[in-house]
Amino acid sequence: MKTEPDFIPSGGITSPRGFLAGAASAGIKYTGGRLDLGILGSEISCTAAAVFTTNKVKAAPVVLSRQRLLKGRASALVVNSGSANACTGTRGMANAEEMAAMAARHIGVAPEEVLVASTGVIGLPLPMERIRAGIAGVKLSAEGGHDLARAIMTTDTVPKEVAVRGEDGFTVGGIAKGSGMIHPDMATLLCFLTTDAAVEIGFLREALRAAVDVSFNMVSVDGDTSTNDMVLLMANGRSGGGPVSKGGRAAANFQRALNHACIYLARAIARDGEGATKFIEVRVSGAASPADARRVARTIVSSPLVKAAVHGSDPNWGRVLAAAGRSGAELDADRLDLHIGGVRLVKGGRPVSFNKEEVVGRLDAAEVVMTLDLNLGGGAATAWGCDLSEEYVTINSDYTT
Amino acid sequence: MKTEPDFIPSGGITSPRGFLAGAASAGIKYTGGRLDLGILGSEISCTAAAVFTTNKVKAAPVVLSRQRLLKGRASALVVNSGSANACTGTRGMANAEEMAAMAARHIGVAPEEVLVASTGVIGLPLPMERIRAGIAGVKLSAEGGHDLARAIMTTDTVPKEVAVRGEDGFTVGGIAKGSGMIHPDMATLLCFLTTDAAVEIGFLREALRAAVDVSFNMVSVDGDTSTNDMVLLMANGRSGGGPVSKGGRAAANFQRALNHACIYLARAIARDGEGATKFIEVRVSGAASPADARRVARTIVSSPLVKAAVHGSDPNWGRVLAAAGRSGAELDADRLDLHIGGVRLVKGGRPVSFNKEEVVGRLDAAEVVMTLDLNLGGGAATAWGCDLSEEYVTINSDYTT
Repeated sequence: MKTEPDFIPSGGITSPRGFLAGAASAGIKYTGGRLDLGILGSEISCTAAAVFTTNKVKAAPVVLSRQRLLKGRASALVVNSGSANACTGTRGMANAEEMAAMAARHIGVAPEEVLVASTGVIGLPLPMERIRAGIAGVKLSAEGGHDLARAIMTTDTVPKEVAVRGEDGFTVGGIAKGSGMIHPDMATLLCFLTTDAAVEIGFLREALRAAVDVSFNMVSVDGDTSTNDMVLLMANGRSGGGPVSKGGRAAANFQRALNHACIYLARAIARDGEGATKFIEVRVSGAASPADARRVARTIVSSPLVKAAVHGSDPNWGRVLAAAGRSGAELDADRLDLHIGGVRLVKGGRPVSFNKEEVVGRLDAAEVVMTLDLNLGGGAATAWGCDLSEEYVTINSDYTT
Repeated sequence: MKTEPDFIPSGGITSPRGFLAGAASAGIKYTGGRLDLGILGSEISCTAAAVFTTNKVKAAPVVLSRQRLLKGRASALVVNSGSANACTGTRGMANAEEMAAMAARHIGVAPEEVLVASTGVIGLPLPMERIRAGIAGVKLSAEGGHDLARAIMTTDTVPKEVAVRGEDGFTVGGIAKGSGMIHPDMATLLCFLTTDAAVEIGFLREALRAAVDVSFNMVSVDGDTSTNDMVLLMANGRSGGGPVSKGGRAAANFQRALNHACIYLARAIARDGEGATKFIEVRVSGAASPADARRVARTIVSSPLVKAAVHGSDPNWGRVLAAAGRSGAELDADRLDLHIGGVRLVKGGRPVSFNKEEVVGRLDAAEVVMTLDLNLGGGAATAWGCDLSEEYVTINSDYTT
C-alpha cells in the first residue's frame, strides 16, 4: 500500500478523464478581462455529492445545488465570482436557476443536471445580462481546468489546483478558492473535485464527508462558514476501473487519494490566507479522543493571539496553552508538552529553559510547526492556518467600498 | 423606582464606606515607577463572591482565591500586574500563598482572609523579593482606589473606575482592567467590586453571576477566557442599611446598582480594546429566547470581519447577517431587519436602498450602534465591542519580546 500521494505535475480539475472546463471574463465585478465565470462539464452524467455551508443564511446557489443533489447526479457546474447571490430572495433563486439553464443550453445537457456556485459580495442581484454573455463565451476543453481555477478567485493571490493518481488507474482532480483560513466565515470556501473512478453514490457521499473532515474542516472552526461554502465531488467512471463502493481495497484507495487532494488544497488555502506571511501547522497528540484533538488543534490555529505572536516571531507559548485550555477538550494542565519548530518549550505544563534565539529563528521561517501532546490518550489531529498580519485588517476594512 | 444609575463623579472602588486601598511600584515587569502592585482592604470582614475563568489552564492565584472563597468571606485582596503566575506549578502556588501572607501581615488581617490576583506574562515565577518590597510600600487610604485602578493596568490605556449610589443609602464601587474585548482570551479581565450594603452570601453570589452575565460576558464570547480572569465582589455592610437577601425591594435595588456598575466597566473595557478606534454596540431583539439573543449579539460583535468593516467604515451588512447565521441561534434569514446608526439597511432579509454616504458617516463616528431584529420572539440582548485595527495586530505581535 502506498502512503505517499502520487501528484500529477501541473494537474487539475480536468486531469481525470472525461472532464472539460472553460472560463470567461463576464465583468461581474471587475473589468479588465479578469476571468470570473466558468463551467465544468463531464462527457457523461456523474454521481455527485457535496458538503455545503451550515450557515443558516444560505445563498441561492447553495439552496438550488443542494436540492438538485438529492438525487445524487450531475453533469455540470456553472460558477461565478464577484457576486455571491446571497440575501437576494426569490429573485436570487430565479437567477440561479436561469444561470443553470443558460449553461445547460450552452453545453447541451439537461438543466436539472447543472449545479450552481457563486462567491463575492452579498446582497447584490446577479447581473444576468453579463452572466448570459459570459456563458456564451465559455469554451470547454480538457485543458480548461486552469482557467476555471482562476475564474473562482476573489482575494486569493494564487489559483489552487491539484491532481492525484490513484493506485487503480483512476485520478482525482480539484480546484479550490478561499483566502481565509483566517476567517472562513465570509471568505467563501469553494472546492470542486472530479474523479474518473466509478464511485457509487452512497460511498461517494461518505468519502467526501470524511475527506472534508480531515482537510477543509481543519483550516476552519466549526460553524465558521460563509453563506456560500460548497465542496463538490463529481465521479464519472471514465477510468475504466470497476465500481467503487463501501469497504474493500478500492474504497480505501479512493479515500486515500481523495484525502490527499483535499488536504493539499486545504493547505494551499491556509498558505494563501488574507495577509498571511507564514504557514502554521498545529499537530496535537495524546488527546482523550480524536474529537478532542481536533478541537484543540483548531482552537490553537485559529487563535488571533497565537497567530499574531507567530507573525511577530514571539515565542509566547502561554497563548498556545491558554488556547488549548479554552478549547473545551479534556485536558490536564500539568501534562502538556509543547514544541515549536522542534524545540521543546513546555514539559508537564511548565516552561523549560530553551534557546530563545533558536525558537525565534524557527518562528521566522515561512512554515511554523507546533506540536502539543496532551499525554492523556490516543487522539491525534493536525490543523493548518496562517499568521495574522496588519495586512489582513487592511484587506478587510474596505472590501465592498 | 429609578432606572437611571446614580453615578458618583470621580468615584471608585473605595467609594463604599469602610474600604481602603493603596498601590506601589514594585518593578515587577516595568521600571520607572509604574504602579504594579496594590492592596484592597475592608475595615471589617466581608461576605465575598467571585466569578473565575472557565479556562482549564488556571493561574495559581485563581486556584488559591477560589478555594478561599468557598467559605464566602474575605477581608482583603492583593494584586499585581506584570506577571500572571500561571503555568508555574507548585512553586507558583507557594508564591501566591506567600504573597497573601505578606499582605495579611502588612495590614493586620488573617492570611486566609486575603485573596490574590495576578495579570501579565504567563510562565514566569513571581519575583518574590520585589513583591515583598512592594507590599511593604503600600499605604492604605480611602482615596487609594484610584492608585489601585492604575496598578492593575497592562495594555490598558486608561484606568477604569466606577461608583454607583444605590437607593437605600448603599454604594457599589469597582475597578477593572482588560483592554481586550477583541480577545479576552489572553487580555486578562480583572474586576474588583466593593459595596457597603450588607449582602447575604447566597444572594451576593447570585447577584454577581447575574451582573456578570449582562456585562462582562457581553464583551466576550463564551469560553474565551484567560488563565487569570476574575470578577470579585466584597460586601462589608458598613452602609448601615438592613441585610440584603434574595427577593424584595432591597435585593432588586442592589442588583440594579451592581448591574449598572458592571455594565459601565464592561463598556469601558470594550472602549479601551487593544488598538480600538471605535466603540461598537450591538442590540439584538426578536430572538426566540434571551440565550439566542445573547448568542447573536456576541457573535456579531466578536466577528473579526464585522469589526474590520467598522474600522474601515464599510457598510458591509452581509457580514453582520452571516455572523448572525453562524451564531447557532434559531433564525429565519427572511425575517432579519438590520439598522446601522439608525439607518435601515436590511428589511426581511433583503437589502433596502439606503444612502451610503449617510451610513458611512454613522460608521465614521466614535460609537457605532447596530440593531438586528430577528422577528421571531421576545429575546433581547446587547453586546459591546470595538473595531479591529492594524494597531491590534502590532500590539499582539510582540507582547513578550
